[in-house]
Amino acid sequence: MPIYADPVDGLAVPVGLLRAWTARLIESLGTPADIAADVAEVLVASDARRIASHGTARLPNYVALIEAGVMDSRARPVAETGRPALLRFDARNGWGHHASRVAIDAAIEAASTLGTATSVVRNSNHYGIAGWYALRAAERGMIGISLSNTSPLVAPTRARQPLIGTNPIAIAAPAGSFGAFCLDMATSTVPRGRIEVAARRGETLPIGWAIDAEGHPATTPESALAGALQPLGGMEESGGHKGYGLALAVDMLTGVIAGASFGPNIVGLFSTDGPSDLGHTFIVLNPEAIDAPGVFERRLEGYLEQLVAAPTAPDAPGRVLIPGEPEAEAARRSVDEGIMIDAVHAQRLRDLGERLGVTFPA
Amino acid sequence: MPIYADPVDGLAVPVGLLRAWTARLIESLGTPADIAADVAEVLVASDARRIASHGTARLPNYVALIEAGVMDSRARPVAETGRPALLRFDARNGWGHHASRVAIDAAIEAASTLGTATSVVRNSNHYGIAGWYALRAAERGMIGISLSNTSPLVAPTRARQPLIGTNPIAIAAPAGSFGAFCLDMATSTVPRGRIEVAARRGETLPIGWAIDAEGHPATTPESALAGALQPLGGMEESGGHKGYGLALAVDMLTGVIAGASFGPNIVGLFSTDGPSDLGHTFIVLNPEAIDAPGVFERRLEGYLEQLVAAPTAPDAPGRVLIPGEPEAEAARRSVDEGIMIDAVHAQRLRDLGERLGVTFPA
Repeated sequence: MPIYADPVDGLAVPVGLLRAWTARLIESLGTPADIAADVAEVLVASDARRIASHGTARLPNYVALIEAGVMDSRARPVAETGRPALLRFDARNGWGHHASRVAIDAAIEAASTLGTATSVVRNSNHYGIAGWYALRAAERGMIGISLSNTSPLVAPTRARQPLIGTNPIAIAAPAGSFGAFCLDMATSTVPRGRIEVAARRGETLPIGWAIDAEGHPATTPESALAGALQPLGGMEESGGHKGYGLALAVDMLTGVIAGASFGPNIVGLFSTDGPSDLGHTFIVLNPEAIDAPGVFERRLEGYLEQLVAAPTAPDAPGRVLIPGEPEAEAARRSVDEGIMIDAVHAQRLRDLGERLGVTFPA
Repeated sequence: MPIYADPVDGLAVPVGLLRAWTARLIESLGTPADIAADVAEVLVASDARRIASHGTARLPNYVALIEAGVMDSRARPVAETGRPALLRFDARNGWGHHASRVAIDAAIEAASTLGTATSVVRNSNHYGIAGWYALRAAERGMIGISLSNTSPLVAPTRARQPLIGTNPIAIAAPAGSFGAFCLDMATSTVPRGRIEVAARRGETLPIGWAIDAEGHPATTPESALAGALQPLGGMEESGGHKGYGLALAVDMLTGVIAGASFGPNIVGLFSTDGPSDLGHTFIVLNPEAIDAPGVFERRLEGYLEQLVAAPTAPDAPGRVLIPGEPEAEAARRSVDEGIMIDAVHAQRLRDLGERLGVTFPA
């Protein structure tokens, strides 16, 4: 995930304070306390990891969905049909974060005895950062894979229009002194938010990020925002069909298998036109099913040590990074220094708190 | 996978004839008949799909490994420790194709009752095309995921040297009138073979395919072949760190979890310096665990119908493709017209057959 630089006009909010306020705000919408606690945990974890696009800055969007009657703030997910190692949950159009926490926990539990297990979720909403769920498995010594479909923003290779989501893939595992390995990536070259940043900065775009409304490579942010994102790899020559294939595979492994919506049929995640009916999938592998405790983790740690010690390219800004390292470092800093939120973000939370009667504490 | 144009000087060999000869040739190396049949099946399926780089053209390499005592032509894989949904196999340094066929079949069998299952393989060798194993699950109505680590040819983002494999990801599922969805991709922008083709043709390389020996972007095939491939996404600006993360995740899910070799420690797949000790992993999800038979497949078919009907970009060479479509079309033609193999390939097979006393029939 792209992590964002601290805003220069930022306000430092202690992690615990922001989490407690977020939970109370969500409870004020009629959400049961245990569900609100899960949502606050995932949103604030995103802020702490400096993934500002997926954290509390999204609260006004969620509130709008609930107030429009498009998302159900009170719904509790239910376990549906399944077999021991493949379980399906109906999120009943409630908070995606909570349904996903329940689903990954069920997969972890089943994998602890069976070795591998999968939970799929249908009828869900935005679940925040994919990596949070994968990391939950890593904290229990397992490999976690977290997948979701999302709003159609990406044009398949050769197509002119956005038909498929930026469908993220997160994969995490325990990694000794590195904490965790945590790949958390959209299957597009860049997220839409990165184009919006380019628009604010007046930048031009490199080939491979987006196409314009006619299907030509977009060289300005404005033409890109009127067109579609490109899949990872960009143009066909540089492997864009692989990113398209990955995005489609994620949709198949989430929306299609779970019986949720998929592809061009998904109503925008934050659109009040109707429920999104997203699908999420969590696959958990338990290395202790085939090795003594800690053996897998030590092997992975040794591998990562080899990578970070590698000679670097002449223009590299630093040593080789491990997926998830910058976010984990940001999270440690957030615990020490508080979460830095920018002035616009802070004002939105203040306004929201005032309107819902839950005063923002900073 | 890149599929290759038919050679102009090609020889058309009937699929069944090539498969039978390949099996007999492999048996002549001391390989038991059932193992030789599996290897021949996978190699000829690659040729039939026009993935000429992974089929019978590799036979001289395999024979060299066996004759050097680096690979064991007689070894039979054994099931090791495991739990119901996570099984480990020791390929005992035998044919990777056979060990992998046994492993995916075990995962299919376990997933048919449990819903999800995984097989991991250690101490293995090159297994051919990743997609063959994923398609085996698709033929049984399930979703198959096939992963392998490979020789270190790719430089992680920011690194100057090749430290990690082109580690393929294949994902397949049954898709109604489309036959199967089958994504089968290396996690590098292009395979090394594509650079070799560029060298033969005197082409320059686009940015994002490879770096030279000093770590700068390689613009000639010669400098690329002395350097390293780049991960899918190319440079960091265009998302190369995602391709690197995927390649590393595949290695973690294969070599690291299976207790095989990984990353820079892997001896080249066709090097006679020592065994490769590769890891493979097969994850199978059974949609019938949560839905009536055929429901998942019909949903996927409907989705793919939406994609192929999409308006195309102005410079698109045709309609939107489904992953695996060109290979499946090539396989159908191969059944009708025979497998087209080029003159060099044919002569190598004739020479090999003559030396091993198994006359090549064409």
